This record gives sequence, structure tokens and C-alpha cells, in this order.
Amino acid sequence: MEKVNFAEKLAKFSDLWTPKVIAEMNNYQFKLVKIKGEFVWHEHHNTDEAFIVLEGEMRIEFENDDSVELTEGEMFIVPRGLRHKPCADKECRVMLVEPKGVVNTGNVDSELTAPNDEWV
Amino acid sequence: MEKVNFAEKLAKFSDLWTPKVIAEMNNYQFKLVKIKGEFVWHEHHNTDEAFIVLEGEMRIEFENDDSVELTEGEMFIVPRGLRHKPCADKECRVMLVEPKGVVNTGNVDSELTAPNDEWV
Repeated sequence: MEKVNFAEKLAKFSDLWTPKVIAEMNNYQFKLVKIKGEFVWHEHHNTDEAFIVLEGEMRIEFENDDSVELTEGEMFIVPRGLRHKPCADKECRVMLVEPKGVVNTGNVDSELTAPNDEWV
Repeated sequence: MEKVNFAEKLAKFSDLWTPKVIAEMNNYQFKLVKIKGEFVWHEHHNTDEAFIVLEGEMRIEFENDDSVELTEGEMFIVPRGLRHKPCADKECRVMLVEPKGVVNTGNVDSELTAPNDEWV
């Protein structure tokens, strides 16, 4: 039973696109991730996924040239099954909320596929 | 499919201790709440509950004189079944994450029991 300070946790890693678990609530996890550049197109067949921007700006692209721009203090829920590609021009710090076991690249095997359930 | 801006949502209500839903992820909800003063002692028998402080400072008291102090950029998971009492000396803005249907006063009927599933 410890509180979590986002800045302290963010200071403990520098690798990009590798979500780190910071807390668990029932069978859900809160994860911090630093992103920069373009991720891979992917989808999560079995779950929605919450993006909450803590610092910086990011964009989530969808098919048909749709996209959403997010800045600090904004969140977006990507619905299950929706193909998407997160991007950030500069480094952006994001909190993800999703069920335990969700792989960052969803249905896609990629060199960006990160170890799952890695805590910081 | 719309993004959520916390400041915009917070500007839309002023009542205290009445969580407003801002987003749903699977069967979970993200809620904003403004708090000031002392809430009622209560517990949630069936679920953990996430507190994320967006602005200000708050305290969660537990039995045996335990407590945790939270400030902006900090979060805490109250485990299911643990009796707790949120407090704030000055107004504090908090995001809650918990399953849909969770009542703010848990197992306790109180004048502070808020309508459930109220969106902002």
C-alpha cells in the first residue's frame, strides 16, 4: 500500500515505447510510457485502452486519415478492435490504463513489442 | 469517440463529493470529483478504487491512524474492503477509476451518497 508519484517513476527509466506498470486495480494496470516517433499500427481485439497524457503532446492515428491530438491533461479511450497508431513529434509521457496482460503492440509482432508486466 | 480535457470538464460543475463520469473503458469508468472537508468512513466490498490527484492535495485516512497524503501527480489504490475516509483541507480535484456502478459511499448510506453514473 504505497502511493505512486508519477514524476519519481518517470525519472527511473528512459527507454521509449516500453510501458512500465506502476499500480494494479483489480485485474487492471496503470502503466507509464515515454513515446517519441511513430509506433506500429495495431489493435487490441479484447479490450479498450485508455491514454492519459501527463507531459507533452501526442497523436493517435486511425484509418481513413482520422486522428486525435492529445496534450497534457487530456485522455482518450481507444475502443477495442480499432486499428490505431500512436505518434509523438517530441518525447511525450503517457499513462495507460488497461487490463493486465495487454501487449503494447496488440495483434502485431514487432521489434517494438515490449516485455509485459514490467514494473518500475 | 471524443477526447476528454480534464480542465474543460472540471469547469462544468462545482458541487463537492459528487463524482462525474468522463469516460468509459470496458466496464470501468473514469470520474472527476471535487472534494473539500471530510467524507464519510466507508468501504467498497467488491472492488479496489484508484485515486489520482489532478489539482491540490488530499488525504485518505484508514483505521489505526494510518493515512496517505496525495498531491498533484500522485495516485493511490485503495484495496477492496479497506475502510477509508477521503479528506481535503482545501478544494482538491481528483480522478477516480473504478468499475461502473460503484457508489461513492460504498457500503454506507449517507447524505453524501451521490447519484451514480452522472456524466459531465
